[in-house]
Amino acid sequence: MTTSDAVDKRPDDQVTDAGAEQPAEPPQAEPTPAKPGYVQPAIDVTALTELLDGKYAEVRNLVRQNMVEEKQILLDEETMSTDDFRDRVRDVVVKMASTGQTGMGFPTEYGGGGDIGGSVAAFETLAYGDLSVLVKVGVQFGLFGGAILQLGTKAHHDAYLHDLITGKLMGCFAMTETGHGSNVQALGTTATYDAATGEFVITTPDDASRKDYIGNAAAHADVAVVFAQLDIDGEGRGVHAFVVPLRADGEVLPGVRIEDCGPKMGLNGVDNGRIWFDGVRIPRANLLNQFADVTEDGAYESTIDNANRRFFTMLGTLVQGRVCVGGAGINAAKVALVIATRYANVRRQFEATSEDQEELLLDYGMHQRRLLPRIARTYALHFAQEHVAAALHDVFSGLTTDEQDRRQLEARAAGTKVLGTWHATDTIQECREACGGAGYLSANRFAALKADTDVFTTFEGDNHVLLQLVAKGLLTDYSSEFEDMDQFGMVKFVAGLAVGTVLERTSAHKLFQAIKDVLPGGDQWDQEAGLLDPAYQQAMLRFREEHMLAGVARRLKRGIDSGMNPGEVFSRVQDHVIGAARAHVERMVLDSFIDKVSALPDGDLKVALNLLCDLHALSTIEADRAWFMEHGRLSSARSKAISREINDLCRKIRPLAGDFVDAWGVPVEMLRSEELIG
Amino acid sequence: MTTSDAVDKRPDDQVTDAGAEQPAEPPQAEPTPAKPGYVQPAIDVTALTELLDGKYAEVRNLVRQNMVEEKQILLDEETMSTDDFRDRVRDVVVKMASTGQTGMGFPTEYGGGGDIGGSVAAFETLAYGDLSVLVKVGVQFGLFGGAILQLGTKAHHDAYLHDLITGKLMGCFAMTETGHGSNVQALGTTATYDAATGEFVITTPDDASRKDYIGNAAAHADVAVVFAQLDIDGEGRGVHAFVVPLRADGEVLPGVRIEDCGPKMGLNGVDNGRIWFDGVRIPRANLLNQFADVTEDGAYESTIDNANRRFFTMLGTLVQGRVCVGGAGINAAKVALVIATRYANVRRQFEATSEDQEELLLDYGMHQRRLLPRIARTYALHFAQEHVAAALHDVFSGLTTDEQDRRQLEARAAGTKVLGTWHATDTIQECREACGGAGYLSANRFAALKADTDVFTTFEGDNHVLLQLVAKGLLTDYSSEFEDMDQFGMVKFVAGLAVGTVLERTSAHKLFQAIKDVLPGGDQWDQEAGLLDPAYQQAMLRFREEHMLAGVARRLKRGIDSGMNPGEVFSRVQDHVIGAARAHVERMVLDSFIDKVSALPDGDLKVALNLLCDLHALSTIEADRAWFMEHGRLSSARSKAISREINDLCRKIRPLAGDFVDAWGVPVEMLRSEELIG
Repeated sequence: MTTSDAVDKRPDDQVTDAGAEQPAEPPQAEPTPAKPGYVQPAIDVTALTELLDGKYAEVRNLVRQNMVEEKQILLDEETMSTDDFRDRVRDVVVKMASTGQTGMGFPTEYGGGGDIGGSVAAFETLAYGDLSVLVKVGVQFGLFGGAILQLGTKAHHDAYLHDLITGKLMGCFAMTETGHGSNVQALGTTATYDAATGEFVITTPDDASRKDYIGNAAAHADVAVVFAQLDIDGEGRGVHAFVVPLRADGEVLPGVRIEDCGPKMGLNGVDNGRIWFDGVRIPRANLLNQFADVTEDGAYESTIDNANRRFFTMLGTLVQGRVCVGGAGINAAKVALVIATRYANVRRQFEATSEDQEELLLDYGMHQRRLLPRIARTYALHFAQEHVAAALHDVFSGLTTDEQDRRQLEARAAGTKVLGTWHATDTIQECREACGGAGYLSANRFAALKADTDVFTTFEGDNHVLLQLVAKGLLTDYSSEFEDMDQFGMVKFVAGLAVGTVLERTSAHKLFQAIKDVLPGGDQWDQEAGLLDPAYQQAMLRFREEHMLAGVARRLKRGIDSGMNPGEVFSRVQDHVIGAARAHVERMVLDSFIDKVSALPDGDLKVALNLLCDLHALSTIEADRAWFMEHGRLSSARSKAISREINDLCRKIRPLAGDFVDAWGVPVEMLRSEELIG
Repeated sequence: MTTSDAVDKRPDDQVTDAGAEQPAEPPQAEPTPAKPGYVQPAIDVTALTELLDGKYAEVRNLVRQNMVEEKQILLDEETMSTDDFRDRVRDVVVKMASTGQTGMGFPTEYGGGGDIGGSVAAFETLAYGDLSVLVKVGVQFGLFGGAILQLGTKAHHDAYLHDLITGKLMGCFAMTETGHGSNVQALGTTATYDAATGEFVITTPDDASRKDYIGNAAAHADVAVVFAQLDIDGEGRGVHAFVVPLRADGEVLPGVRIEDCGPKMGLNGVDNGRIWFDGVRIPRANLLNQFADVTEDGAYESTIDNANRRFFTMLGTLVQGRVCVGGAGINAAKVALVIATRYANVRRQFEATSEDQEELLLDYGMHQRRLLPRIARTYALHFAQEHVAAALHDVFSGLTTDEQDRRQLEARAAGTKVLGTWHATDTIQECREACGGAGYLSANRFAALKADTDVFTTFEGDNHVLLQLVAKGLLTDYSSEFEDMDQFGMVKFVAGLAVGTVLERTSAHKLFQAIKDVLPGGDQWDQEAGLLDPAYQQAMLRFREEHMLAGVARRLKRGIDSGMNPGEVFSRVQDHVIGAARAHVERMVLDSFIDKVSALPDGDLKVALNLLCDLHALSTIEADRAWFMEHGRLSSARSKAISREINDLCRKIRPLAGDFVDAWGVPVEMLRSEELIG
C-alpha cells in the first residue's frame, strides 16, 4: 500500500483535494484544449484597431505619423549630450505643435483644436514614442497651458494662449516644492500684495520652499505659473497661482535663481530645475484670477468662500494631467507587451514537445501566465481610460455641469491614473525579464521604457495619496463637503455624520438584493453562477468594494468613538482605506471592459474579446482570492477552479496573442528591437 | 433599524466577520501598542553589525574602506563618457585587486587568499557601491577566473592564475550566445579538433551562435574562456571550455570579430560585446581539461561517461557565480532600504496626529507596511545567504565531499539567487516610490540601483529556469540521475520511477507526524498553535512545500499516464513546478532566520530580531494565505488574525527600523542622497 492510498482513506483530510485530484481538468493529448463545440475565433486586426482607436482614430494616426517622422529621437536619446538632447526634444515638440497635435484641447480662437477628448487621445498615443517628448508636451501644453486656460481669465488667455500653443512661449508649472509634493496646500512660497505699487512680491522663504523638479525650468521656460501662499496685509488667503517671468532672451531675470536638478533616472530630455524667488515683483494682473481676485487696493474677492474648497476647486480644474498620465502609462505598457509577445512568438528555448526543435516561449504555460493576463488587463485599462477621457471631455466642454459628475471625474481620473501607472511599472518589468538578457540592451527599448515611466507612479499625485483621494470621495459620497476636507477632516466626517449613510449604501442586504436580480442561485449565487458569467464577475468585485468600504467606515467610527486621535485612527486604518479605493477602481475598470464587449455585434471579434475580458476578470479575482475566501464569497474548490479556468483561457488566447498586441497599432519604428523580433 | 443590524441577525453570514468586528484589536489611545508586559527592546547597533558581518567582518570592512576611497566613481558614472567610465571601472577593479579583496577565493600559491567564503563576503559587500565595479569583478575573478580554476588543470593555473588575480591578464567568459542563453547545452559555436596540427578550430557557424552580452569583451579582455561544441572526427562530444586569445596589445586578433553591445539599461561601466570566431586555431593545451581531454591523436577521454552528466558537472563547478549574484541583490536592496527608511524617519507630509506639525512618513500605517516587511525579508535573506555561502565554502574547500551536498548546494544557490534578485527588484522599486519624486533624481541613488540590478534576475540563470532546476532536484531527490536529465527527461523520470518516492517522502501522514511532535493541538495544530510560535510558522511553510511537490509529481504522472506528450505535460504543470520550487526556497530562508535567532543568547537583540523574524514569517504566510486557505490550513478568521498581527508587529518594529537598517553598515558615502536624508 502506498502512502497516498493511506491518505485517501482519511475523508476529512483536505490535503488530498489539491494537486492530488483535479477531475475538472483531464489531461488532453491535443496541443490546444479543443472542448466540444468550441471554435477558435479569428481576429480582424484592422477592425480591432478601429475599435480601440474609436472616435479619435484620425488624431491618433496623426500622432503615429509624426512620431515615425521623428523616429531618430529614440536613438538621439542614447547618443546626444544632455544639453543637446534637451534642445532636440524641444524642437520636436515645437514641430509637432505646428501640426496641431499638441494644441487639440485649446479653444479654436487661439489656434487650438477645441477638442478636449482629442487632446487626451493625442497625448496618450505619444506614449508609444520617446517619453521625454511626451512629458515635455505634458509640461508645456497640459500643465502650463492648462493652468493658464483653467485658472486664468480672458486677459491671460489673450496674452499667452496663442504663443504657448505654437511653442513660441515656453512655460513651466511651479507647484511642487522640496518640502511639499503631496501636501501642496502647505506650500511655503509667498506672494505678498503690495497695494502701494499694485504688485505681488514672490518670495522663497527657505530651501524647503524652493520649487523643485519643475519641468522646463532648467533651460527653456520663459515664464512660470507659480503656486504661492497669497498674503494680503498679513492675512493668509491660501495657495493661488501667478504668472512669473523667469527669463528674457534666454537669460534668467534678476531675483530669480534657477538650478538644474541634474541627471535623473530617465526623461533626461526634460530640463527639470529648482527655482528660488527673492522678492520678485509682478503686476497684480498676473494673478490667475478665475476663482479669486485682489482689487487694486488690496481687497480679496472670491466666489468660493471656504478656503479649502477654493483650493480643491482650483486643483480640480487641473485633472486633465492625471487623465493624461494614466493613459500614457497604459500605452507605454503596450509597447513593452508588443515586443515581449512578438519575441515569445519567435524565440525558442529548450526542447519540450519535440526532440528536434526547441519550443516557442509562448507555448510554455508559465510564459502564457506572465504575458496574457497583462495583455488582458491592458485592454481593460484601455477601455477604462476611454471612459474617463470621455467624462473629462463632457465636463470640461460644458456638456455636463453637474457638480457630482465633476467630483466623480476627479476620483475616476485619480483611480485610473493609479492603476495605469502601476500597471506600466509592473508590465514593463515583466516584459523585460521575459526577453532575458537581450531585454537589457537599450536597442530593445525596455531601458528607456522602464527608466522614463518610473516616475509616473508618483507624479501628478503619488499613487497612494491618490487612492486616499478616491476613498475620500467614496466615503463622503461625493458630498458637497468633499472639497472642504483634508485627511484629518475626512476621518472625523466619516466617523460622524457619514457613517450611517455609507453603511446604508453599502449594506450587504441591498447588495445581495441587486445581485439576486441578475444572477441565478439566490443566496448561493456566488457558488452557482458560471465563472464566465460577466454578471458573476461584476458581482464579486462589487461585493468586495462595498464590503471593504463599509469596513473602513466602521473602523474609523470605532476608533474615533473610543477617543483615539483621528490621525492615529487613520494610520491604523490606512491599508484598508487604500484597499477599498483600489477595489473600487478595479470594479470600474472591469465594468468598462464588459460594457464595451457586450455592446459589440456578434461575431469573432466579440468572441475573442470576451475571452480576454474573462481572463482579465478571473485574473483580478484570483489575485485577491484570499480576500474572497476570508469573506465567505469563494470556496476553496471554486478558487482552484478559477485558477484552472485561467490556464484554460490562456491556452485559448495564446494563438490570438500576436493579433491582440498588433491591434494597438504601435508603429514598428517605435519598437526598435530588430534583433529580438526581426 | 439600520441595515447593519439586519445583517447581524444572519448568523451564518460570514460577511459580518470582516471589517465589522475585530475584537482582537481594540483601538488604543497610545501611539504605540504597549500591551501589558511588553517591553520595547533597545538595539545595540554595533553588536548587530558584528552578528551580521559574522566571521568575515574583516574582509567586509576592507571592502567598505576600499569603496569609500573610490566613492567618486558614483559620480563618475553620471558624468563620464562610456569609454572613459569603462576604463575608470577597470582601473578601480585593478586597484581593489591589489588590496587582496578580489582574489580571496584563489589558492594562496598563486597570490590568492585561499578562502572561498571570504571571497563571497567580499563580493557581496561590494554591492553597496557602484555595481559596474561589482559586475566587472564578477566577470574577471568569478566567471573568467572561476572557469580557469575549476575547469582547468595545473598547467592552466600556472599559466593564468597569477596574472588574472592581479588584473594584469583580463579575460571574459564566453558562454551565452544570441540564440542560446538558458539552454546552453545547445550552443552553436564549434571547436573541431585537427589532429594534423594538434589544434582546435573555433568557429561561429551563424549569427545565432555568436557569443553575446559577454562582459569584458568589447574593450578589455585579452583572452576568453569559450564554450563550444567539441567535434572530433565528425563526432559531437558536447560543450567544452577553451581558452581563446582575443587581443594582443589591445588589438583584436585575426579571425576574431568583436562588436560592442552598445548602451544598456545600466552597468555601462562594463564593456559587453559580441564575438564571432572565424576558424581561430588554438593549441590542444587550451582545452580546460579538468573533466575531459583530447589526446594528441584525437582520442576523447573523460572520467564521466555520460555527456549530459559531464556537462552539468562542469556547470556545477561554476555555482559560485550564482551565490555571488544572490548576495549582491540582497545587499543592493539594503542600500535602497537604508535611504528610504532614513527618509521616512525625517520626512513629514500632511498633518495627521497634530494640527501643528506634519506627520513623519514612517508613522503612517501604510508606509510601515511598505518598508518594514521588506527590512525583515532582507534580514531573512541575509542569513539564508550566509548559509549558502558557508555550504559553498565547505564543498569547494573540500571540507565535504558528499555528492548529495554538492547537488543540494547547487539547488540552494539557485533558489537563493532567485529570491535575492527578485527581492532587489521589488524593494528598490518600492523604496524609490516611497521617496517620491526626489527618488527619481540620480543624486539619490535609486536610478543606478534600479538600472544596474535589473539584469540580476536573468543573468547567471534566468530566475524561472533556475526555479525549474530547484524543482528538478526536489522531484528527483537529488538522485544520481540528477545531472543526467534535461527537462524532457525529468518529466519522464518523475512520472516513472520517482513518483512513488516523492509521494512517500512528501506524504501528509509523515508530515503531520513530524509536526505533532513539536506543536500542540494534535490534528488541530494549525488552528491552535500560536501565530508567533516559530514551530508553527515552519510547519506551515513545510506543509506547503511538501504538498505542492506531491501535487507536481502526481500531475506529471497523470499527464504521462494519459499518453500526453511530456513537453505538453510540462507546459501545463509549469506554474505548479515553479510554485513548488519557490515554496521550498521560502521555507529554507525562514529556517535560516529562525535558526540564527534561536541560537542567540537571551537579551534585547534576540527580542528585537524575534520581532523581525515573526514579521517575516507571517508576511510570507500572508502573501500566500489564499493557498493555505485553499488547502485547509488556514481558517478565514485566522488568516485575518495574521494580517492584524503583522500590523501590530509593524508598530512594535517601527521605533527600531532606523537601527535595523543602520546595522547593515552601508558606508554613508555610498548612500549619497544628501538632500533626502541630510
